Amino acid sequence: MPPTLGVGLIGHAFMGAAHSHAWRTAPRFFDLPLAPELTVLVGRDATRVAEAAGTLGWSSTETDWRRLLERDDVDLVDICTPGDTHAEMAIAALEAGKHVLCEKPLANTVAEAEAMAAAAERAAASGVRAMVGFTYRRVPAIAFARQLVADGRLGEIRHVRAQYLQDWIADPAAPMSWRLEKDRAGSGALGDIGAHIVDLTQFITGQLLTGVSALLETFVKKRPLPASHGKLGGVGGEGMGEVTVDDAAVFLGRFTGGALATFEATRFALGRKNAIRIEVNGSAGSLAFDFEDMNVLHFYDGAEPASTAGFRRIVVTEPEHPYVGAWWPAGHGLGYEHGFTHQVVDLVTALAAGEQPTPSFADGLQVQRVLAAVERSAADNSAFTEIRTTAAEGEN
Amino acid sequence: MPPTLGVGLIGHAFMGAAHSHAWRTAPRFFDLPLAPELTVLVGRDATRVAEAAGTLGWSSTETDWRRLLERDDVDLVDICTPGDTHAEMAIAALEAGKHVLCEKPLANTVAEAEAMAAAAERAAASGVRAMVGFTYRRVPAIAFARQLVADGRLGEIRHVRAQYLQDWIADPAAPMSWRLEKDRAGSGALGDIGAHIVDLTQFITGQLLTGVSALLETFVKKRPLPASHGKLGGVGGEGMGEVTVDDAAVFLGRFTGGALATFEATRFALGRKNAIRIEVNGSAGSLAFDFEDMNVLHFYDGAEPASTAGFRRIVVTEPEHPYVGAWWPAGHGLGYEHGFTHQVVDLVTALAAGEQPTPSFADGLQVQRVLAAVERSAADNSAFTEIRTTAAEGEN
Amino acid sequence: MPPTLGVGLIGHAFMGAAHSHAWRTAPRFFDLPLAPELTVLVGRDATRVAEAAGTLGWSSTETDWRRLLERDDVDLVDICTPGDTHAEMAIAALEAGKHVLCEKPLANTVAEAEAMAAAAERAAASGVRAMVGFTYRRVPAIAFARQLVADGRLGEIRHVRAQYLQDWIADPAAPMSWRLEKDRAGSGALGDIGAHIVDLTQFITGQLLTGVSALLETFVKKRPLPASHGKLGGVGGEGMGEVTVDDAAVFLGRFTGGALATFEATRFALGRKNAIRIEVNGSAGSLAFDFEDMNVLHFYDGAEPASTAGFRRIVVTEPEHPYVGAWWPAGHGLGYEHGFTHQVVDLVTALAAGEQPTPSFADGLQVQRVLAAVERSAADNSAFTEIRTTAAEGEN
Amino acid sequence: MPPTLGVGLIGHAFMGAAHSHAWRTAPRFFDLPLAPELTVLVGRDATRVAEAAGTLGWSSTETDWRRLLERDDVDLVDICTPGDTHAEMAIAALEAGKHVLCEKPLANTVAEAEAMAAAAERAAASGVRAMVGFTYRRVPAIAFARQLVADGRLGEIRHVRAQYLQDWIADPAAPMSWRLEKDRAGSGALGDIGAHIVDLTQFITGQLLTGVSALLETFVKKRPLPASHGKLGGVGGEGMGEVTVDDAAVFLGRFTGGALATFEATRFALGRKNAIRIEVNGSAGSLAFDFEDMNVLHFYDGAEPASTAGFRRIVVTEPEHPYVGAWWPAGHGLGYEHGFTHQVVDLVTALAAGEQPTPSFADGLQVQRVLAAVERSAADNSAFTEIRTTAAEGEN
Repeated sequence: MPPTLGVGLIGHAFMGAAHSHAWRTAPRFFDLPLAPELTVLVGRDATRVAEAAGTLGWSSTETDWRRLLERDDVDLVDICTPGDTHAEMAIAALEAGKHVLCEKPLANTVAEAEAMAAAAERAAASGVRAMVGFTYRRVPAIAFARQLVADGRLGEIRHVRAQYLQDWIADPAAPMSWRLEKDRAGSGALGDIGAHIVDLTQFITGQLLTGVSALLETFVKKRPLPASHGKLGGVGGEGMGEVTVDDAAVFLGRFTGGALATFEATRFALGRKNAIRIEVNGSAGSLAFDFEDMNVLHFYDGAEPASTAGFRRIVVTEPEHPYVGAWWPAGHGLGYEHGFTHQVVDLVTALAAGEQPTPSFADGLQVQRVLAAVERSAADNSAFTEIRTTAAEGEN
Repeated sequence: MPPTLGVGLIGHAFMGAAHSHAWRTAPRFFDLPLAPELTVLVGRDATRVAEAAGTLGWSSTETDWRRLLERDDVDLVDICTPGDTHAEMAIAALEAGKHVLCEKPLANTVAEAEAMAAAAERAAASGVRAMVGFTYRRVPAIAFARQLVADGRLGEIRHVRAQYLQDWIADPAAPMSWRLEKDRAGSGALGDIGAHIVDLTQFITGQLLTGVSALLETFVKKRPLPASHGKLGGVGGEGMGEVTVDDAAVFLGRFTGGALATFEATRFALGRKNAIRIEVNGSAGSLAFDFEDMNVLHFYDGAEPASTAGFRRIVVTEPEHPYVGAWWPAGHGLGYEHGFTHQVVDLVTALAAGEQPTPSFADGLQVQRVLAAVERSAADNSAFTEIRTTAAEGEN
Repeated sequence: MPPTLGVGLIGHAFMGAAHSHAWRTAPRFFDLPLAPELTVLVGRDATRVAEAAGTLGWSSTETDWRRLLERDDVDLVDICTPGDTHAEMAIAALEAGKHVLCEKPLANTVAEAEAMAAAAERAAASGVRAMVGFTYRRVPAIAFARQLVADGRLGEIRHVRAQYLQDWIADPAAPMSWRLEKDRAGSGALGDIGAHIVDLTQFITGQLLTGVSALLETFVKKRPLPASHGKLGGVGGEGMGEVTVDDAAVFLGRFTGGALATFEATRFALGRKNAIRIEVNGSAGSLAFDFEDMNVLHFYDGAEPASTAGFRRIVVTEPEHPYVGAWWPAGHGLGYEHGFTHQVVDLVTALAAGEQPTPSFADGLQVQRVLAAVERSAADNSAFTEIRTTAAEGEN
Repeated sequence: MPPTLGVGLIGHAFMGAAHSHAWRTAPRFFDLPLAPELTVLVGRDATRVAEAAGTLGWSSTETDWRRLLERDDVDLVDICTPGDTHAEMAIAALEAGKHVLCEKPLANTVAEAEAMAAAAERAAASGVRAMVGFTYRRVPAIAFARQLVADGRLGEIRHVRAQYLQDWIADPAAPMSWRLEKDRAGSGALGDIGAHIVDLTQFITGQLLTGVSALLETFVKKRPLPASHGKLGGVGGEGMGEVTVDDAAVFLGRFTGGALATFEATRFALGRKNAIRIEVNGSAGSLAFDFEDMNVLHFYDGAEPASTAGFRRIVVTEPEHPYVGAWWPAGHGLGYEHGFTHQVVDLVTALAAGEQPTPSFADGLQVQRVLAAVERSAADNSAFTEIRTTAAEGEN
């Protein structure tokens, strides 16, 4: 039996449920070097957290997340709360010697993210690790896309186009939520979903964005307040509330290798529910992915003769594909939550090996800097704005 | 806390893993009226079953399935073994007052299936229930297809075309396995995967097949024996083994409502990994489904004006769709194993309500009779062969 | 300037318009060894044929097709009339020393087709040629599919599945037409569209069907008579007319090389307008085609490693692809009528070279024999029925 | 018989062939109020133009385009030459009282385009008309998209994303051509193909772009000179030539109604041959189109209940669809060149009615101004740059 890894999870909404499933499920399908234990679930309301712990499979509960820092049976703190709380929690946990898995975006501001990355770097010196949860990297088709690029199958990258399209507030009558408040969420579509496509395109290409030119828009500026605190922690009350984040973000970018990129993140693409669409064109090959068909990667091999060349619809469910061998026979597709399970697998494997899991807090900070550059560009008449690579005073 | 439901599972290969996941996961996402407990796992080899129980999450193990009949902590026997063992196990379990969930096909012969259905009927009188595991019915897109037909959105059904395409033995060098032996598997592609499309088309249309005209083929008659007992229980040894089942089955059929149908089940459709493709054309609408894109159902509404009519690509991930509300937000697709979880949900719900879960053993018997008619037709120069509806002496 | 080829066309409805376009257009895009002249158009009604000749670009008209036989300026007779007239016209034209292009199906009965094939064989001795118009062979994606099979890229063929799906009479209120009368049309969906997929699958595989097992169905047995003679030559009058042909045909088949096949031809597949869908699975590769996306061929190369294998969406618009070099740059797709233009190109090229154009009348006869076997099987309880290869007394 | 319309065509390469086909074909399928005559073809080389006239069907030839201005049998001048010649030819023709159809982009500079629009406006006073050839507007699926937006089926437009992806110079070894020289072509991907998506998105939405933020890139700065004058008029010689235009253009934009837009035009999207992809999201519906599947329009109707909502794959081949009724039965798709034929139909119809055909030279000028703003933005650090609406001194 492998040694145990006691986990304390903060938050039990959408992300908390996904992470719980992953902690429960990973050891059932993968040979893990550590045995995760669902030790303690944290929520502010004692009744609700107790109920959630029962449902999600946690052994105990706390209502104050700081209690995790003191508990010896907690080796890792998993943070699934809104972005405004990440910095405080993560830094405290790392300083208490707990490994940390933190949901994305790493923080609501670059300054917070910088503090977190610094804390992670300090902690690493004593073998305490921090990871940020860009789970879509662990969709097999995405991981395989990265592999193809790393293997040189795409050659020199020329174009990246990435869209994250949702439509859950396309209706102006959709109610307010914490996700539409700048104080809680940091930003709107940009940070919530734009962060994913920034991370994914950098991950797949193995390159960083060097600068961006952006437009942000809030199409619907006021929304009805929900009647009471909803599942996602709405602000409550009656009347209308002000939307203080972006509804949509579009931006151009350049990658370190010279590729041109277009990005779009929106919650107003009517009919698109969770369409993460990424295309990469290189001098030797091209890729296309759409999360609405998540088990498929389209690959064009430029080395093929013209008459038989074409985008191949690769069903990424072969034993040869990343993560897939642990699951079902070929053709039996995976779902959304498998990315979280794979994240646990990679995290636990890195912890046991004493290695840095990826993406690190430094990686999360870099994404945050891209988002900040997007906001600066949008505020500066869309001027092309470089991604800062060092800490900057007073930056958002 | 709901009352518990002690489960004993026989078999821990592919199906055993899928069922284990479902028993573990269903109560985490659904409010179940009974709390399933993973009480005991049964396997012939003590060492291997102990290891599997640890991995899959079972509390205890047995090496003789008959022990389940005696254990008071087992309320339900879940049978995930090859088809030649189903009848004996299921009948014994039902007679011992245990509910039964039995993998498909129900049995290797109609006679066995008849005995099982009779046992199920006897057991039902005392509230003991039996269900056969046609899990694909519980893929949300399939369940929603059934709903559209039941709601009359397709009108009178005219055409059904169903294919279950795999390619795992398209290579003549692929080794022998128990699935290629008639004694163990009953039949080849016909029973293994053809059974699914027979069940699914009958389920979606709400009609039964009345007769079939068929061709069976074994393209590769001898295959290399595996070097040793493999994961799936291969027969071992060296040299070549004889394939005694069909590699592919094609058949025409008629449904009770007069629709024409074509069926194809094969393990030789190179490039198709697990492509369950079903199309239904009615007088008012049409449907198309492909398991390679399992979260999508294509629906054509004949009531739409010609200029705006078209097959709609419905992403079946809305809260309004069957089973989906318990999972993730819209657009976050499910995977293969969710069908098993939904099967547990429906089974447990029916047990708690004292109702017959579906598909019943009688439903499984009817599918078996269709398969038998396919074999009779193929043996009788493809003559159109009626599906028997009552027990027949000496039938396969 | 190449020598001229005087063409006389009989019929000016749908097919007449398509053939006229082809004769006009072929020399504009292809270097032809003979210069086709649109010499004379034949129609029964003097006024209507004159109007049609003006619209379609023909230099003169006749109301009696027999006049073509006497005209020295007519080198080739192009027959675009209903099937019941083909035999008489084609045989007379061949005997008069005119080349013949005859629309499919070759005839309404095997006996007629046999007479035509015999006449073609006699005529060939003196260099007079006959061709039957299975134009879909000349869709570039289809021609390229044939090439891939001929090049051995599919290996041994195991499966063929072919569907020709339309929906123009899915509505029971759709009126009668000559296409629904056995006397005029010979058969219904079977001969009209089923003939195409029989020809195409034989063409692509380079093999012949050896036998079939079939079901035919007429879903709607009576239909309203149109108020007057319509565009397609409806029978006129009031009240209801009897549909005397099949609405749909489904059949199984075997090819000479042992492949299993399923076929479906229907006018009741609601939502499918002209969906010719063909899939071929071989031991080395697979193909898939759908005329609804006619410039695309999907090809799976079994030689590719599992991780990067997938159906390639080949856009068949490269200069390397059949016929395409004469048209537009890559990616600029062709349409339905281009098949007819390519037919003219191949026919004229063969005539100038003194070679037999394909498909020949013998090929058309063979397709007719398949259709006849389908009808015999359907009338004989779907029994597997061999395709006759020699003339048979009293056959339909 | 309708009165004739004598046409003089300048240029006989790719575009000249397409226009010739359209002039020949339009009257065969549509009832036109004027009868176009292919009167004279103009090319600089007497031998080559004579050969082209024979192939393409023109009655006479000229080697000096100015001769058209003098010929009484020429009513309309059709300009299919590189952009640097458009202004001189078009203005002279209009001043000579000839109608003008001019290929896009209208000119290589805004100043030229302004002069052309002014000439068109003057000519219109005396009933002489000018039209610019954005033929993709006449693809039925695009025309139908416009109709859906005009009918309010999309509601308020929120997002536009448009890409025109080609790959014909993705290979650095592809040779120089006039299309890569700024003097001849004006710009690269931007003007050649970016112009189309600017026009198409403005056409479909019925709105104009108000400003843009852009990046331009030339990935391959030097290319091998072709051995001799090629088909497209290459510059000849040996060694390497300098590419003086953009290989790719990406830009953000805003529409008059407030929608956000992303645009991408490139010749380096390996695997995409002529992929014009346009998506529009509105508050009531969404559209998606890809020229690689040109007979299809995807439409999402937001009024549909969530459970049955989905992008409809509308096969735009019904008699109810724009232009389609003149061609084939439903499901028989059209090809690239049909857009040119429809352009002739609309142009001739407008001329006969004494109305302004669209898109006018003013429309072409507006597109040119968008392209100029893209270039200015790219030269100004991607700053958001307004589209000028009045003549500007010294503008490119």
